[in-house]
Amino acid sequence: MSDTAIADFGLIGLAVMGQNLILNVADHGFTVVAYNRTVEKVDRFLANEAKGKSVIGARSVEELCRKLKKPRKIMLLVKAGQAVDDFIEQIIPHIESGDIIIDGGNSHFPDSIRRSKYLEQKGFSFIGCGVSGGEDGARYGPSLMPGGSPAAWPHVKPIFQAICAKADNEPCCDWVGETGAGHYVKMVHNGIEYGDMQLICEAYHIMKEGLHLGADEIANAFAGWNEGDLNSFLIEITRDIMRFKDSDGTPLVEKIKDTAGQKGTGKWTAISALDLGVPVTLIGEAVFARTLSSLKNERVRASEILSGPASSGHQIVDKNEFVKKLGQALYASKLVSYAQGFMLMREAAKEYNWNLNNAGIALMWRGGCIIRSAFLGKIKEAYTNNPALENLLFDPFFKNAIDNAQSSWRYVISQAIVMGIPIPAFSTALAFYDGYRHARLPANLLQAQRDYFGAHTFRYLDEYTDDKHPKDRDVHINWTGHGGNVSASTYLA
Amino acid sequence: MSDTAIADFGLIGLAVMGQNLILNVADHGFTVVAYNRTVEKVDRFLANEAKGKSVIGARSVEELCRKLKKPRKIMLLVKAGQAVDDFIEQIIPHIESGDIIIDGGNSHFPDSIRRSKYLEQKGFSFIGCGVSGGEDGARYGPSLMPGGSPAAWPHVKPIFQAICAKADNEPCCDWVGETGAGHYVKMVHNGIEYGDMQLICEAYHIMKEGLHLGADEIANAFAGWNEGDLNSFLIEITRDIMRFKDSDGTPLVEKIKDTAGQKGTGKWTAISALDLGVPVTLIGEAVFARTLSSLKNERVRASEILSGPASSGHQIVDKNEFVKKLGQALYASKLVSYAQGFMLMREAAKEYNWNLNNAGIALMWRGGCIIRSAFLGKIKEAYTNNPALENLLFDPFFKNAIDNAQSSWRYVISQAIVMGIPIPAFSTALAFYDGYRHARLPANLLQAQRDYFGAHTFRYLDEYTDDKHPKDRDVHINWTGHGGNVSASTYLA
Repeated sequence: MSDTAIADFGLIGLAVMGQNLILNVADHGFTVVAYNRTVEKVDRFLANEAKGKSVIGARSVEELCRKLKKPRKIMLLVKAGQAVDDFIEQIIPHIESGDIIIDGGNSHFPDSIRRSKYLEQKGFSFIGCGVSGGEDGARYGPSLMPGGSPAAWPHVKPIFQAICAKADNEPCCDWVGETGAGHYVKMVHNGIEYGDMQLICEAYHIMKEGLHLGADEIANAFAGWNEGDLNSFLIEITRDIMRFKDSDGTPLVEKIKDTAGQKGTGKWTAISALDLGVPVTLIGEAVFARTLSSLKNERVRASEILSGPASSGHQIVDKNEFVKKLGQALYASKLVSYAQGFMLMREAAKEYNWNLNNAGIALMWRGGCIIRSAFLGKIKEAYTNNPALENLLFDPFFKNAIDNAQSSWRYVISQAIVMGIPIPAFSTALAFYDGYRHARLPANLLQAQRDYFGAHTFRYLDEYTDDKHPKDRDVHINWTGHGGNVSASTYLA
Repeated sequence: MSDTAIADFGLIGLAVMGQNLILNVADHGFTVVAYNRTVEKVDRFLANEAKGKSVIGARSVEELCRKLKKPRKIMLLVKAGQAVDDFIEQIIPHIESGDIIIDGGNSHFPDSIRRSKYLEQKGFSFIGCGVSGGEDGARYGPSLMPGGSPAAWPHVKPIFQAICAKADNEPCCDWVGETGAGHYVKMVHNGIEYGDMQLICEAYHIMKEGLHLGADEIANAFAGWNEGDLNSFLIEITRDIMRFKDSDGTPLVEKIKDTAGQKGTGKWTAISALDLGVPVTLIGEAVFARTLSSLKNERVRASEILSGPASSGHQIVDKNEFVKKLGQALYASKLVSYAQGFMLMREAAKEYNWNLNNAGIALMWRGGCIIRSAFLGKIKEAYTNNPALENLLFDPFFKNAIDNAQSSWRYVISQAIVMGIPIPAFSTALAFYDGYRHARLPANLLQAQRDYFGAHTFRYLDEYTDDKHPKDRDVHINWTGHGGNVSASTYLA
């Protein structure tokens, strides 16, 4: 091993993701220096997976830094949380102004905002980078979502755009934005992934319980959808999962326990939506659906007590036709979910002062990651055609798609409701669409109630404002004829 | 003014709520000492509203403490947040071991947990008390939800149970639980209030847009419901609001701007539900519905672009019959919301080590507060009959109610969906009910997907476990025939 600065890229953390990312970088002509807290792992990696590749080892953080060309680019692929901060402190004494620390873990975006500011104050650069695509993606082309110090991007770009996934010959990696923007966009990606998976599960549930289709027939439905507008990684693997047989020849999926785990990123997205006041209802329902699934024992007891619909004799006659409509309902619901996700990122960009590039985000998700799909190519087109597009649903292509799907969408949901099949994500997607397209919602009554019991005040609709009730004047009415005319104090609720 | 310790109760903060609460306490034979940061307010209050009552003033925190009998009971009704901590620090030098500080503001429960521990360590007692009912409630009988130091309760109980609202001759105030339990239960109360209001708004929207009823006809519907199972404060005021005419003789409610404000307690409830992993979907949707309403200008633009259902000629023939079904749908949806709320409190009690008394909570909400209703009397009965009741929906009375409402519930929702009326809260209530009563949900597919792309592992259903697949063993399958057999590292998502 040489002690001169010969490496282009440093990586700390040799779990599967880290190992695969190193091999990917090395395959693209860069020399990588690898370090791991348990140093034996470095030796094993060099002697096996990395043998014959342009990968060198380091037995300390100091050695790793010494072997890196300037500006140093050091990527951490360690457990999110304290371990990231600990390694940053270990690295700092051995780097110089302009050097770049990259966190490729699943960090929560407020941590990346904090680390970005901390390192920039010290003269270093920080990149919080979302990495998606799992082990295979890391090895052969992940989706990369880097954000943080803009000065760092030109140095990292050649490496990241070489190793990342490509879609329609374009790299699925571009600069996301300042401070925590990269991890924020990755978080929203994961939230959307929760939504997509829940929608697919609901479609499966409808076909299984409502149409009484078997696993192979359901697989065929997904296979058909995968040939059309819904073409995507998740639909494709669902097709394969439905066809996968256990050792006894029966579909394995039907033997799997229906209790979904979660790792928190969907929850983070829903909480951020609540904090920023954006109605990201589909991800919210998808997270809650996972929590409901985890109450398995309670549900089993409930199933013995609570009744379903009386119309159990309900029959769908033309199943092929219904599956076709179901695909349209799935597509329309999915479109609402992505529209909500982009609404959330719009508000986050305002709140945290990020310059987000919507077309770039769609392209980053177009390939390499779990939600990769043909659909994201259309979203990229929509934002490329009109960078100022206020809402995805306003794009002519998508507006047309909803117009075509709308009657099927309503039909499928109303049928599932009558049949007693739980479809929280389908339902909330349509409720959002109907709410969003209503110039007037019933919140006027809600404001009246709040003024009635809590003197919270209300405003007149613009068309009813006049000299007596000027626009944007807060009004309180004495609804009962008794009680005070004083507006709300701070304790009321 | 005397300087001897003659007062039974001290109160700091003379906004409307504080003034009214003092008058209420004084009316019940207690002597109250009042203080306010702006001292002129004390003088004005004594010279006006409090004149002739057993209320004395203090011109400093020290004087207030000096005039109180031991153990001192000092209630803060100041703005939640830093002001509470500031007053606590001002009070501490002037009180003794065993004295009690009560925070009656809308504090966030983690703050009450912190303050409770802080004051108990110093030998004092703390009560975080939810107060509901607005100005009128404070004056003539609020719902009070006190939690914190159990040792304080016997001293405060005679005063609180005297001044609080009564329902069926029982006081709407009882001990809630330790540390932040009082403010937690108040938070859930507010979340449920969000849900109730959203459900009422959706019912109004259906009658207005789906049945083309006028304000007076809608008022009559609410009046009718108020005579039955739905009898409650919110239904009653909605009836009155619908009848309230503006100076030009037209219904005022139709002139009110449909942008709902929020004060954060609904959001806190939804975030707590996400954090604790409890599917409190109805409150979640209610909060999101308010945020959607606030996007008024964007909705107006959307209404000009996005289309509604083609079946605009859709007609409900028997409107009276539909209104009857709508009332049943409202009742069933509301029941789901309360069931979710009690599920949330159950998990919070586990998480924070509180001993919550469900029947007591129902009784506290039975009168005095915004969600007061006959329905809460039934909930109290359910938990009194069976304190170990696992879920409200399992109570025979409520199970029967759902059975009776079920076909109407499904009918109303499916009709609203076909008509294009947004009903996120109705929809999610039914989706939860259908999900909860399913012993098997489609999350088996979701677990298969997670294992496919991220090696997250899954488990076999109990009925398929055997020697090869023991119960509760995490299994990973190589779904594709290529790629690793290693389970997920911590970076995957």
